[in-house]
Amino acid sequence: MKVLVTGFEPFGGVEGNPSEDVLPLLPDALGPIQIVKQVLPVAFVDSGWQIAAALTEERPDLVLCLGLKSGAMALELERIAINLDDAYMPDNAGDQPRERPILPHGPDGIFSPLPLKRMQRAIQSTGVPAQLSNSAGTYVCNHVFYVALATARELSPPPPVGFIHLPLTPQLALSRYDRPSMTLEDMRRGLVAALATAIDAL
Amino acid sequence: MKVLVTGFEPFGGVEGNPSEDVLPLLPDALGPIQIVKQVLPVAFVDSGWQIAAALTEERPDLVLCLGLKSGAMALELERIAINLDDAYMPDNAGDQPRERPILPHGPDGIFSPLPLKRMQRAIQSTGVPAQLSNSAGTYVCNHVFYVALATARELSPPPPVGFIHLPLTPQLALSRYDRPSMTLEDMRRGLVAALATAIDAL
Amino acid sequence: MKVLVTGFEPFGGVEGNPSEDVLPLLPDALGPIQIVKQVLPVAFVDSGWQIAAALTEERPDLVLCLGLKSGAMALELERIAINLDDAYMPDNAGDQPRERPILPHGPDGIFSPLPLKRMQRAIQSTGVPAQLSNSAGTYVCNHVFYVALATARELSPPPPVGFIHLPLTPQLALSRYDRPSMTLEDMRRGLVAALATAIDAL
Amino acid sequence: MKVLVTGFEPFGGVEGNPSEDVLPLLPDALGPIQIVKQVLPVAFVDSGWQIAAALTEERPDLVLCLGLKSGAMALELERIAINLDDAYMPDNAGDQPRERPILPHGPDGIFSPLPLKRMQRAIQSTGVPAQLSNSAGTYVCNHVFYVALATARELSPPPPVGFIHLPLTPQLALSRYDRPSMTLEDMRRGLVAALATAIDAL
Repeated sequence: MKVLVTGFEPFGGVEGNPSEDVLPLLPDALGPIQIVKQVLPVAFVDSGWQIAAALTEERPDLVLCLGLKSGAMALELERIAINLDDAYMPDNAGDQPRERPILPHGPDGIFSPLPLKRMQRAIQSTGVPAQLSNSAGTYVCNHVFYVALATARELSPPPPVGFIHLPLTPQLALSRYDRPSMTLEDMRRGLVAALATAIDAL
Repeated sequence: MKVLVTGFEPFGGVEGNPSEDVLPLLPDALGPIQIVKQVLPVAFVDSGWQIAAALTEERPDLVLCLGLKSGAMALELERIAINLDDAYMPDNAGDQPRERPILPHGPDGIFSPLPLKRMQRAIQSTGVPAQLSNSAGTYVCNHVFYVALATARELSPPPPVGFIHLPLTPQLALSRYDRPSMTLEDMRRGLVAALATAIDAL
Repeated sequence: MKVLVTGFEPFGGVEGNPSEDVLPLLPDALGPIQIVKQVLPVAFVDSGWQIAAALTEERPDLVLCLGLKSGAMALELERIAINLDDAYMPDNAGDQPRERPILPHGPDGIFSPLPLKRMQRAIQSTGVPAQLSNSAGTYVCNHVFYVALATARELSPPPPVGFIHLPLTPQLALSRYDRPSMTLEDMRRGLVAALATAIDAL
Repeated sequence: MKVLVTGFEPFGGVEGNPSEDVLPLLPDALGPIQIVKQVLPVAFVDSGWQIAAALTEERPDLVLCLGLKSGAMALELERIAINLDDAYMPDNAGDQPRERPILPHGPDGIFSPLPLKRMQRAIQSTGVPAQLSNSAGTYVCNHVFYVALATARELSPPPPVGFIHLPLTPQLALSRYDRPSMTLEDMRRGLVAALATAIDAL
């Protein structure tokens, strides 16, 4: 069995991205389960193409995408991806879609099939704050989440897909005084608990 | 032509609800368009039943639902309703659904077909702050929004449905010092502009 | 009798300053009391020099300084000015003091002698949100407030001095989506009520 | 040499207080410096009496008071205590002073003499977020801080006094979804760095 965990490169003038930086801290296996890690570009078109390719070529049994949400104060487990790109700033490729559907005839929203409340409790039991979120936004994070969920539906069996937003690290929050933060070590501990719970439910 | 505007009764220990209190301030007609107003209960089952009945019996040409979002700092135009009831507190009927679908085989999400960005700009041009929101939550507001959108799809022609969240009034925010607020008069001015724009697009 | 009300010019990349823009909306007299208005530069040295000169030359009977606080959600009546300049960004003259006392042997803090809670209730009774604040920061607003309070102590009789922080206007908040705002008209209504209460207490 | 570190018992319906819970995690000595720990009641009168007695009887060379600030997202090093009790809720003894001076003829504000920016950088260098704060509020935390600073001034030599506000722990934030949190272990690491820097400056 194989789990795919993805993160993102830096963007938006922030000098790092915890969703990339936490990947090396995650184990390469949980028991018999292999954990494959991949860093995605913060670019609408390329990120969508790469996550779709990863699902169809790697055929993971579970997909967990990670992204940064400046302002988050907990690990935020996303419930739903929506069929909308609406960028408040250009992505790293200079693309800035406004009110553009991701898949022209795709469903308006797609729920994550992961057991999010159980994952939330598992994270909390390690002493790390976790919340459910009802919106992954309309930027590249939501784009990747939506494409992954839509791609998974085409596969047989469809691998469950989830998305977790991470806070800034204290280091990245240094110059953003009104932003909460979480250490990479706390993120790691929470994410391992979330992954173990999601794997158990397979 | 006829527009249905709905508000909610008070709930959650707050001593009033601007979505109810603003209704009498709205005109009964905009040019030739009649505006019908209705107050809904803050109760999952009854509110859903009543909004569905209002659509099928009144046959409005446009539906705009209003609700209170404590913490909002602008009129928030909701983009999408999701097929999920998940209540953090009991509703006024004592019902507290947890992770319950609204329609067992309904779509995960349904977009509002209203021209939300144009409505946002129309509100802003009256000097009233307005934002787009990607989540109406998982409480009674989202429930009514989802049922209204799903019901509209069954009608021919389907009336466009929208939802706008209102901030607390200064009066209601008095004992909630960390909550922004907006006067009813500002809400009224913004809502009239939003309605006029939505009607123009019919 | 004479009241001095001051505002500030724009700064920090914001394209306006409600503390300047609200001045023309205030009356030039309240009953027999003349209201003198003055716009101060957002510069530590010059603003301090100008407010001190205004107090010693104009000899107002009451001083109310206004300033912008991006993020405020109410009129914020400041309780205390502290003897510290600590700037997170250069002022409009390029000066950026770090941990510098305003008056080398001045008191650490000076309370405003105005009846702030009564002024708060007077503002609230007009339907405008108002809060007490325990810190005017360490930028030019606090600098002016401190210099005004320290200068007033040297005069006989010492005029009471107050400071009220204003939120962004909806116009200025347009590109700052996570910031609350208030219309100039609401600010005007609240400030007139505050002034009338402060004058009554003279 | 001796350092006094104080925390508070629980209050306000929160089921614990990190300022008390972190005390046993702090060492009993830093090199040759003894660390004495004391838990104070959340009561205006008794806390003031006890902190004054601790300073005059224990004669510590350095005093660091800790308190909880629900909503803090970093260790907050307080710059100033002000001569004002103004309680938004009764303390644990049922006392609720409104706009009452702490010392009838005391100074309006007293700065902490500790090297706060150096302490902030020391905390940040351990990976823990830290901020300076310009207000310790007007509740029991500020009361203890003010009484400690005022008492220290009467002693010869006067021991430096500081106050650090702590966030909620993830455990305590579980039912407060809009509140940031920090683990006790992160608090401990940051506080040890802050103490070491303050001791170095003696």
